Amino acid sequence: MLKIVQIGIGPLGKKIVHFALERKDIKFVAAVDTNPDFVGKDLGVLCLLKPLGTIVCKDLKSAIKNKNADVAILTTVSSIKAIEKQIEELAKAKMNIVSTCEELSFPWQEHPQIAKRIDTICKKYKVACIGTGVNPGFLMDYLPCVLSSVCQKVNKIKITRFLDASNRRIPFQQKIGAGLTRTQFKEKVAEGTLRHVGLVESIHLIAHSMNWELNNVTESLKPIFARQTITSGYIKINKGMACGVEQIGRGFIDKKEVIQLRFRAAVGEKESFDTIEITGIPTIKSSIPGGINGDTATCAITINVIRSIVKATPGLKTMLDIPVPGYFQGDSD
Amino acid sequence: MLKIVQIGIGPLGKKIVHFALERKDIKFVAAVDTNPDFVGKDLGVLCLLKPLGTIVCKDLKSAIKNKNADVAILTTVSSIKAIEKQIEELAKAKMNIVSTCEELSFPWQEHPQIAKRIDTICKKYKVACIGTGVNPGFLMDYLPCVLSSVCQKVNKIKITRFLDASNRRIPFQQKIGAGLTRTQFKEKVAEGTLRHVGLVESIHLIAHSMNWELNNVTESLKPIFARQTITSGYIKINKGMACGVEQIGRGFIDKKEVIQLRFRAAVGEKESFDTIEITGIPTIKSSIPGGINGDTATCAITINVIRSIVKATPGLKTMLDIPVPGYFQGDSD
Repeated sequence: MLKIVQIGIGPLGKKIVHFALERKDIKFVAAVDTNPDFVGKDLGVLCLLKPLGTIVCKDLKSAIKNKNADVAILTTVSSIKAIEKQIEELAKAKMNIVSTCEELSFPWQEHPQIAKRIDTICKKYKVACIGTGVNPGFLMDYLPCVLSSVCQKVNKIKITRFLDASNRRIPFQQKIGAGLTRTQFKEKVAEGTLRHVGLVESIHLIAHSMNWELNNVTESLKPIFARQTITSGYIKINKGMACGVEQIGRGFIDKKEVIQLRFRAAVGEKESFDTIEITGIPTIKSSIPGGINGDTATCAITINVIRSIVKATPGLKTMLDIPVPGYFQGDSD
Repeated sequence: MLKIVQIGIGPLGKKIVHFALERKDIKFVAAVDTNPDFVGKDLGVLCLLKPLGTIVCKDLKSAIKNKNADVAILTTVSSIKAIEKQIEELAKAKMNIVSTCEELSFPWQEHPQIAKRIDTICKKYKVACIGTGVNPGFLMDYLPCVLSSVCQKVNKIKITRFLDASNRRIPFQQKIGAGLTRTQFKEKVAEGTLRHVGLVESIHLIAHSMNWELNNVTESLKPIFARQTITSGYIKINKGMACGVEQIGRGFIDKKEVIQLRFRAAVGEKESFDTIEITGIPTIKSSIPGGINGDTATCAITINVIRSIVKATPGLKTMLDIPVPGYFQGDSD
């Protein structure tokens, strides 16, 4: 029986609780969220399950005191800066940490000092910490590195994730700008709230795995506009309004593009798919028609990684370092 | 600079030497083969490269004495029984071991006592040992387990590898029975020389990863007969003669098929592809059109695994246990 602490009970946190409890060998011993509507409530009830006897606390430090949890699942924010203090508290409480914080998936290039501090404190308290998820964490970084295992030479890696957001949850459709006017879209981009976080981290993880020294990493973002009225999403999108977003991350060695990650999410997108193309010896093209549902995959991999992180040596890990976090059927599953 | 010993200088061994030397950070300090035509020759010259100053020896024990190699690459036989003594000698010489021995990829079910002995001696001498390759080792075991990382539930795994052997090396075409009559094919099967080794090992590795207890594992083998004259291979195959082989491995839980591995290799096969289908939450279908060339992939992954095995803890490892053995560009590559 693995003892888990859940920190952050937003849509992802709730789904993780659902998924984890289906595995049978996982038990939640504490839960934390700052939302005043959640504090004091039973974690199970909040997740529309039966009561678990675990009450949501506001304060992380007091919530985890004497809980002796094996792993803390941290689904709070995308920013490593904002999450550092939480990781510090968890490490001091001797809990391994699995987080969906995008910037934590490979922070060594963009936030080397924070990464170093997290690594040091984890080693001091002999726990392991990792950032994972479907993207970053799997589709655009870990999986292409795994595929490259059969390559004698890699010249270029190109990954394309196109997804039709019509059936995704409303906050996701809002996050990609569906239904915004041209001006509103620009404002959101300027605010920094309309952006998939993680492309740059994925590029750095791939480069690290290949032992490539990149001279330049770029990231672009542009709206996708509806060419006709779209009614498949949560609101009607008129022709000319934004229906989604396209982001392209690129990594260069000596002005030569060696990594290209193209992420496109829009309501009414014709086709969903995930494609990895490795140009090398041999050249490999791997494709997942229909793509992988991001929410389900992120929650599943977060739980599957638990099994690998408890076996890992102390420190800040990446997906490259741990044993395969494959699906694992719980004993009474 | 990694110091390597090459044991077995058949077609795979030669290609591995080629590939390894392209990486720049690998050096061969000893080479072993029992073929009297090879003994006493320079390894480089034998591989049609420039002389390396490494002379092929017949006797493993004397060849590796005082060589202080980091890793031994063992490409001799498919049988773990036949390879155990070699592994023992290498472990005693404190060398990590990477082998293409199919039965070594997951020997815990079929050969538990040998597996235990290998694990024990590796731990005693603090070295790690692993069996790898494209199949077993990657396509039909490691890769599907990696893909299952984004799954909350796995009900069934079905993997299909179809390959057109027209352009593969002659021994491979012979090995799959291309050009044999019905009677000759039967004789070869009875001899045990016409069989892809590893399906059962792949099934056990997947089951181990999923924490599934299989009640039954089966393996079938049948010839594929030419429906018309085929001239794309190394010899002309008349209508009605064998052009290849199809093997299907199956794993069952309570009479329910949960794993199916279908391997089909034939001269003149219409299409080459590798497909992994995971039925679960979510259901995932991943496909590599054109498939992956087995020889190139096996040699590449053998070399890529070197980097992971030197970081591994001592003992007999499987592909599930080690950090991602992705392609790695050597420093002066």
